[in-house]
Amino acid sequence: MTITENDHIFAVIMAGGSGTRFWPRSRESKPKQYLALTDHATLIQATAGRLQGIVSPEKISVVSTRPHKKWIDEQLPWLSEKQIIYEPLARNTAPAIGLAAVHVRRIDPDGIMIVTPADHLISNTSAFIDTLQKAVSTVEHNHDALVTLGIQPSFPATGYGYIECGESKNDRIYQVESFREKPAPEVAHEFLASGRYLWNSGLFIWRADTILQTIKKHMPNLYSGLKEIETVIGTSEYENVSSRIYNSLTKQSIDYGVMERANNVFVVKATFDWSDLGSWQEVYRISEKDDNGNVIKGSPILKDVKNSYIEVGNRNVSLIGVQDIIVVDTLDALLICHRDKSQDVKWVVQKLKQKAKKDPS
Amino acid sequence: MTITENDHIFAVIMAGGSGTRFWPRSRESKPKQYLALTDHATLIQATAGRLQGIVSPEKISVVSTRPHKKWIDEQLPWLSEKQIIYEPLARNTAPAIGLAAVHVRRIDPDGIMIVTPADHLISNTSAFIDTLQKAVSTVEHNHDALVTLGIQPSFPATGYGYIECGESKNDRIYQVESFREKPAPEVAHEFLASGRYLWNSGLFIWRADTILQTIKKHMPNLYSGLKEIETVIGTSEYENVSSRIYNSLTKQSIDYGVMERANNVFVVKATFDWSDLGSWQEVYRISEKDDNGNVIKGSPILKDVKNSYIEVGNRNVSLIGVQDIIVVDTLDALLICHRDKSQDVKWVVQKLKQKAKKDPS
Repeated sequence: MTITENDHIFAVIMAGGSGTRFWPRSRESKPKQYLALTDHATLIQATAGRLQGIVSPEKISVVSTRPHKKWIDEQLPWLSEKQIIYEPLARNTAPAIGLAAVHVRRIDPDGIMIVTPADHLISNTSAFIDTLQKAVSTVEHNHDALVTLGIQPSFPATGYGYIECGESKNDRIYQVESFREKPAPEVAHEFLASGRYLWNSGLFIWRADTILQTIKKHMPNLYSGLKEIETVIGTSEYENVSSRIYNSLTKQSIDYGVMERANNVFVVKATFDWSDLGSWQEVYRISEKDDNGNVIKGSPILKDVKNSYIEVGNRNVSLIGVQDIIVVDTLDALLICHRDKSQDVKWVVQKLKQKAKKDPS
Repeated sequence: MTITENDHIFAVIMAGGSGTRFWPRSRESKPKQYLALTDHATLIQATAGRLQGIVSPEKISVVSTRPHKKWIDEQLPWLSEKQIIYEPLARNTAPAIGLAAVHVRRIDPDGIMIVTPADHLISNTSAFIDTLQKAVSTVEHNHDALVTLGIQPSFPATGYGYIECGESKNDRIYQVESFREKPAPEVAHEFLASGRYLWNSGLFIWRADTILQTIKKHMPNLYSGLKEIETVIGTSEYENVSSRIYNSLTKQSIDYGVMERANNVFVVKATFDWSDLGSWQEVYRISEKDDNGNVIKGSPILKDVKNSYIEVGNRNVSLIGVQDIIVVDTLDALLICHRDKSQDVKWVVQKLKQKAKKDPS
């Protein structure tokens, strides 16, 4: 049986994030998932496109917040209003996934959810489908299974969470021994050397009912809130009730709130190429370079420039004798950053917020 | 006798240059002399201000071209129309100085000219006056003397011409042995080590009549053109005649065309601090730095930035983890350049001109 023959399969795209790591390209009003960082398609368009080979388009939904509506409408015009689940506030992944699960279970009590971040890069769609088939098959045979996709580490990354693999259940499928938060560099080296750790991709596959039961066990407060919302779906009460509930919730990730405490967690080792595109350096890393090792967007004038990421608009921009830098020039802002320091872009955004508060002109 | 008691003294500010080395701050339409690179005053304002302690304001004139009129009127509003000598075309310093000499000699046959570039930085005005007094005194006692001011080299510069000092005539006054073009690095080291060479500052002091006689000898073509213009000064013919003459002239510097071939050339060793501000690197060098070795104009957000020159406007500009760079961000253009490469800014301007020709939109 191929995956598309199971009509209980739903996909949920998590699009509520408001990343600051791609300043000045991304802003609070237009986060990374709505940008075309590596391609003509935006990341959320690519994410939805990948899923359409596996899930019927009408069973794909997006979870986000109202301020993102304009970007979703523009970039995914084929979604019906019912396929967009708005959270009143962004409260990290546990509430978002719980809310989506409530919606899926209401449509199909046997619904299986593929949960995917909107803003990751996956470059091999057939391998992606193949990996998902393994995960869905696991859930079909074991209704209690919570399945996550793990990425074979290619370097000792300190920016990702890791999954410790336990017993191998089947080809590329493992029981999960533990979840590990972003490690220190020496720990990351150990993880890589041991061969038993995979990167946590943030992609999950489970029955809606199963994840809701697991939330009930480990986050009972969230569960009771979700139950209350469930009763008013499709009514005029929905906005008010969900707003009240969300205001009482604290931010919590599904990893920390549920997965780390649950049993019956499995990981499928992915065969696709993956990047979370977590920084400009990461965009540089995965992009095709010219003979000087540069990634160039726009038409700057360059002399003796090497191993740099340069993204400019219509202004006259000239670079001379620099290397290993990231330059992103937009209409109203400019970033110049050493490639090894692109994680500090978040710091800049903090500073800009402080500055804006002090000087609101 | 102090210099101001000699009412034969005139000053001529050479302001026709169209430098490209300060792109994107300077443009053809607004060259360096009309910019405030290090101060609140523009370079030409500072130049005129320095001279006012020595020369009566009505005896200061500016030589330039028509497109510069708006900047001169704006920055030196106290100049009368007669004090601005417009060349129909920029033909380097020999024609410009010759034309000014013709104007001065017409007003005062015994006129002494102080010739100064408009765009150099001199930071010690009393030493400047003291040095000029020596030079004027030399010319007062020796009507045939052509006097130039030389700068004690502080490093083996390859961007300046040098003057070889011969016999010492007096305290800090030497017969000039030879003029040397911009040297190769090893030659510059030799010049510095020998102690006999000074930088050529482009500041000259001579009688108008003497420089015209010397032009007559070494550039007879230029001289006959100047004589023709002289006969029509103050008439309606002036524009037409000067335009015709200038179109027949080739570009020639006073150093190459006259000084290198003349006798009776003297140099006064300057006691003032001098910079020709020939590049962004030079502006960085002479500017006051903060604790990180940075020169900052505007309010960029910085993290781990060292030994850099940063000049920005009102956009949000952030720099992270870079050093030894020059960043100049204007409304419509951006330069990012390694400090050691700022001489290549000229190259960028060439490229931009080629680009503009190809794509005139």
